[in-house]
Amino acid sequence: MSHPIILTGDRTTGPLHLGHYAGSLRNRLKYQDTHRQFVLLADTQALTDNIGSIGKVRESVLDVVMDYLAVGIDPQKTTICVQSHLPALAELSLLYLNFVSVGRLQRNPTVKEEVRARGFEKSIPAGFLCYPAAQAADITAFRATLVPVGEDQVPMIEQTNEIIRRVNSVAGHPLLEEVEAIVPKAGRLPGVDGASKMSKSAGNAIRLSASPAEISAAVTAMYTDPNHLRVQDPGQVEGNVVFTYLDAFHTDAEEVEALKAHYRRGGLGDVTLKKRLDGILQTFLEPVRDRRSQLEQDPDYIRDIVRDGTQKARSLTEQTRSEIYDGLGLFRL
Amino acid sequence: MSHPIILTGDRTTGPLHLGHYAGSLRNRLKYQDTHRQFVLLADTQALTDNIGSIGKVRESVLDVVMDYLAVGIDPQKTTICVQSHLPALAELSLLYLNFVSVGRLQRNPTVKEEVRARGFEKSIPAGFLCYPAAQAADITAFRATLVPVGEDQVPMIEQTNEIIRRVNSVAGHPLLEEVEAIVPKAGRLPGVDGASKMSKSAGNAIRLSASPAEISAAVTAMYTDPNHLRVQDPGQVEGNVVFTYLDAFHTDAEEVEALKAHYRRGGLGDVTLKKRLDGILQTFLEPVRDRRSQLEQDPDYIRDIVRDGTQKARSLTEQTRSEIYDGLGLFRL
Repeated sequence: MSHPIILTGDRTTGPLHLGHYAGSLRNRLKYQDTHRQFVLLADTQALTDNIGSIGKVRESVLDVVMDYLAVGIDPQKTTICVQSHLPALAELSLLYLNFVSVGRLQRNPTVKEEVRARGFEKSIPAGFLCYPAAQAADITAFRATLVPVGEDQVPMIEQTNEIIRRVNSVAGHPLLEEVEAIVPKAGRLPGVDGASKMSKSAGNAIRLSASPAEISAAVTAMYTDPNHLRVQDPGQVEGNVVFTYLDAFHTDAEEVEALKAHYRRGGLGDVTLKKRLDGILQTFLEPVRDRRSQLEQDPDYIRDIVRDGTQKARSLTEQTRSEIYDGLGLFRL
Repeated sequence: MSHPIILTGDRTTGPLHLGHYAGSLRNRLKYQDTHRQFVLLADTQALTDNIGSIGKVRESVLDVVMDYLAVGIDPQKTTICVQSHLPALAELSLLYLNFVSVGRLQRNPTVKEEVRARGFEKSIPAGFLCYPAAQAADITAFRATLVPVGEDQVPMIEQTNEIIRRVNSVAGHPLLEEVEAIVPKAGRLPGVDGASKMSKSAGNAIRLSASPAEISAAVTAMYTDPNHLRVQDPGQVEGNVVFTYLDAFHTDAEEVEALKAHYRRGGLGDVTLKKRLDGILQTFLEPVRDRRSQLEQDPDYIRDIVRDGTQKARSLTEQTRSEIYDGLGLFRL
């Protein structure tokens, strides 16, 4: 119980891909041994920009859980829970909206960028604008003090801490502990097309459950050095997605360095290089896919894991909600 | 069970006054015999513009309940419940924020007017901007189809119906029934100073629990006809607060008409007139005050009523929340 509490999670908008693995799942496998880790299936947050695709959000919940288990998230060590079944998160979200102004939410850099990316400039769904308060609710409800986030999400953690300070100020004592963002050193995994972000919607992702043929097709289509026309020519490693993936997924760093040197001096063709990456990704994803196939045969088991985790999370978050209500001096029944 | 469901309530920001009685409590005494009536102690809504006065909001909860019971609200007929102890209301509030845009909330005439009245133009608390969605959540969670509101609150009901239509459209079937505003024929009771609104903060209110001396002092200070300088002069009835109160609280309409005629033709002095109103208000408020004093002796009884009502409301609202989640197709655990 003295381990620090860490909260992570995923919006349930589709199965997870290699970008999720490199950016967060890999770290969660470590944290589950060193921290008290909660992973939130953020289906209600997903609704803030998917209110027209509720079916996708619903169906992705168990997909994401199977991906977790397939890569080695251990439900004995990590609590996996569903946001829409944790009412205390909604209660705290609504409460925290009183501690932040509309203008502050509109100036939140992450929100601004995401509004732009979604084409919401003309009409922002109120739920979308308010989601920083909901995120603060999630984090504090679990009493998490560590939150792994991408660089672009750091302003969300700042906003959470602002809300925490205001809550503490109104309470008159340190009711909530401030939160620390953990930003992974490895940057975000690019899409196979070289775009800065791997995403299902951009069609540049390799799902953790991808078939061998899908993996090979994606590697074949992968962006390399567009000026590397002949095998014997020197090639560029920087910005070459194949090397980024080798860095991320090959366990033999020495071989990766040797391949880079060879590519730079010329004589290493893209086809040969991609074949190597294909082999590495096939080896990495085969057991993941196999475990996932087995899990797909047993939906009751998956559901039990989610039910148990959500029950555990429910106790904790309702306890925190009561402590916050009491600490602020709301009416006690 | 076939009675239509009516939802009313009060923000818990202080004890109730004659304005509440004339504007809503009086009608609730009728509705509790003809409708299935829920009365919501809106403490979380009160926080949207009282986050710095949580103590006042908390302490007003039982005050308001005692006022209800003192005027004759019967907990056997009317369910009295506390908003902050009904998590389904928060869950639906957050959900509904996805069905309304920030711009639409900002254009809501009631919100605009209230933002102005509170001096929030420079910095609107997000919770305040969002409260129309919370109100839609309250109404629909109780499956209320009738909502008594003042004229100024009619746009809130329109906003609720807009949200209901969008929810139904996404659900693909009529999940929620549209709502009807009941606007009382009698306008709002003015303050004793003649201001359009009686309110504790303006210091122009007569509390339901006012002492005899407080009642007399308020009547003495009451705004009449400023041009009615001598007893024998004709006086004006329109805009004369004493007559507005006589209309609202005297049970003998014929005597009120006679007093008006006398005042109009001259010969009825303000002192005499006010003495008559004082007598009427004393007679009306004496039993209310007595019952309230008795209730104050038994806080456990008050608390039990709130606990029972909230428990009943909790079952109903959580049932509705589940039906809405299921109807929209959220993840079922």
